[in-house]
Amino acid sequence: MHCQVRDKSWVSGMAETLYVRHGRLHYFVREALKRLRVPATHASKIGDALIAADLAGVEGEGVSRLPLFATRIRTGLINPNPGMKIAHQEEATATIDGDNGMGHVVGMRSMELAMELAKQFGVSAVAARNSNDFGMAGYYARLALEEQMVGIVMSNAVPAMVPTYGTTPMLGANPLAIAIPVAEDAAPFVLDFATTSMSRPSIEDAARRGEQIPDGVALDASGKMTHDPQAALEALHLLPLGGTPASGSHKGFGLALAIDILSGVLSGGAFGRQLAGPEGTHEAVAGIGHFFIAVRLRAFGPWVKFRNGITDMMRQLTGSPAKGAPRIYYPGEAEFEIDQERRASGIPIAPDVASELEGLSRQLDIHDSWEHLIEGRK
Amino acid sequence: MHCQVRDKSWVSGMAETLYVRHGRLHYFVREALKRLRVPATHASKIGDALIAADLAGVEGEGVSRLPLFATRIRTGLINPNPGMKIAHQEEATATIDGDNGMGHVVGMRSMELAMELAKQFGVSAVAARNSNDFGMAGYYARLALEEQMVGIVMSNAVPAMVPTYGTTPMLGANPLAIAIPVAEDAAPFVLDFATTSMSRPSIEDAARRGEQIPDGVALDASGKMTHDPQAALEALHLLPLGGTPASGSHKGFGLALAIDILSGVLSGGAFGRQLAGPEGTHEAVAGIGHFFIAVRLRAFGPWVKFRNGITDMMRQLTGSPAKGAPRIYYPGEAEFEIDQERRASGIPIAPDVASELEGLSRQLDIHDSWEHLIEGRK
Repeated sequence: MHCQVRDKSWVSGMAETLYVRHGRLHYFVREALKRLRVPATHASKIGDALIAADLAGVEGEGVSRLPLFATRIRTGLINPNPGMKIAHQEEATATIDGDNGMGHVVGMRSMELAMELAKQFGVSAVAARNSNDFGMAGYYARLALEEQMVGIVMSNAVPAMVPTYGTTPMLGANPLAIAIPVAEDAAPFVLDFATTSMSRPSIEDAARRGEQIPDGVALDASGKMTHDPQAALEALHLLPLGGTPASGSHKGFGLALAIDILSGVLSGGAFGRQLAGPEGTHEAVAGIGHFFIAVRLRAFGPWVKFRNGITDMMRQLTGSPAKGAPRIYYPGEAEFEIDQERRASGIPIAPDVASELEGLSRQLDIHDSWEHLIEGRK
Repeated sequence: MHCQVRDKSWVSGMAETLYVRHGRLHYFVREALKRLRVPATHASKIGDALIAADLAGVEGEGVSRLPLFATRIRTGLINPNPGMKIAHQEEATATIDGDNGMGHVVGMRSMELAMELAKQFGVSAVAARNSNDFGMAGYYARLALEEQMVGIVMSNAVPAMVPTYGTTPMLGANPLAIAIPVAEDAAPFVLDFATTSMSRPSIEDAARRGEQIPDGVALDASGKMTHDPQAALEALHLLPLGGTPASGSHKGFGLALAIDILSGVLSGGAFGRQLAGPEGTHEAVAGIGHFFIAVRLRAFGPWVKFRNGITDMMRQLTGSPAKGAPRIYYPGEAEFEIDQERRASGIPIAPDVASELEGLSRQLDIHDSWEHLIEGRK
């Protein structure tokens, strides 16, 4: 079975981007996770989250992460079958203990609970501890849209950000996501950003393209501002959103710190430099925490009034004058367009990622799933 | 009465900064507002909010704003005695109609309601419409600390921010504040920032000091990046936090937009370019909206556990290596130190502000209160 690859060009040294159907990619992820003793329902949810990132064009949080998660599951650093539980609940709030499960499963369980509570109380807050990297924060925020709710999602992460005036990474590039329903036929508002000036995947993109990074993004290992993406990635001393003290880096730093307090301290989990992570030496459990807020729009008035208002707002904005871009886009619009295009034309898998996934399929003895995947390529 | 000024140097052309006792400044504000037909209880609350800003070193949101508010009350653009009401309430959420009252009064009423609801439900959300500029967002967030709650406060504002790739101000410098309790004897965590790179008062400071503003802060009237604070203030085309598209301005833009949607659209109030404002032609009611979230810490676990965690977190941070500053400060620490110093040594009133306040005292026939204020100066 291992050797029945039909198109030899994909075996090794794959040189071109592979385009695959999202349904088949989801199947591949599920099969891989099942071999890692992840229960089928969990595997399906993890697949949803990873493929949503690939569909949105956020490849750095998609299936490219699967080999790393597999390694961490196999070395016992992530629990494939967590006994997640509600550690504490009072009225509209809850704390979830993720039992060191995959972050995507903990994230979905937490957001689902937040939505249940917001249905009842209009607003809710759920903190989660003992979790792992959950990928694209906006994915969980977007879940709230199905119930005409606003979703607010944040997470702490492995230290990569130096404080304003700092020289040592003390906080993660802690993401914040806010999703808000727009009219039925329009792209939803989905803001999802790292609290550093640039996210690590964006710096990796710059490195791949051979581009410099701007001022206010990263320090090199010696603590000096660097424009070299390689030096930035090696040191991982990223600057907070705002860049320099003069242009507001205390804002990005403060936001990252608030996120760590809500996700880490309030949840009763790890925070600050206590956080190990998937990028580390693979020797420690991550201990990541998240925080979720859901707000039911109808608790404030009729849906139609909100819809008319936000439609007007977005029309004002997207119709306002632009320079350096075809028009003004609101957060989530670009990702929505990419998603629609990729559902039709396939998800691109870069050669290095394809090579790693194929290797993973051999390790897990699911090479037939790999073949099924690439058979279905466009 | 008008002429019994004891120290002639304060009558006109005041050349030096005046230092006054905060209690006497509060009295002066109350007397002025009462003459403007603001009820005594409201006048006291507005005084609390304005003096809190002056104590924290945020003079741009303090008593320097009183003459402008007085003008807007007298011309009928702000309602001095609003019939604020809860327009809608369900479980842990509420919408307040501010009846075009002073923003400080609407802000306090809303945050108090949010705290009441969070006591009952663990978390709450309150939207407010038909309000006015409420000054320092962090003031309302800080109110939550008394109840060992996290306070999250935001507001829309008169358009002053151009979207990423935009050329026309479509959003305000919409502030976001997050306050989190720290240990009893430590400064509370109070993050409070404008979603532009620099706030208007900070640009005014740069102009006063004859300093340039950095890249990524403002466009001039012709749409070009400017380093001249005067040109920035004249055009008021401020760039979102993040500065340029390469260094993350879509994050500041998205955050400002989310804040406007929650404060303006969800509250059922004005949003985007519908917002007139105190800086405008004085011809329109502001129609500003706010959004408040309160989160009760004890709903997630014992207070002592949270306190130990956050104390550890802040110790990690403030003890980490610094360069270009004596040490790392967390948000709110600097303001806390200024507050303590000013409570002891007095609040500085710049000569131009003193001159305007004295003029106001004559208009309102409360010059004796002005004399009382400057008698008590340090």
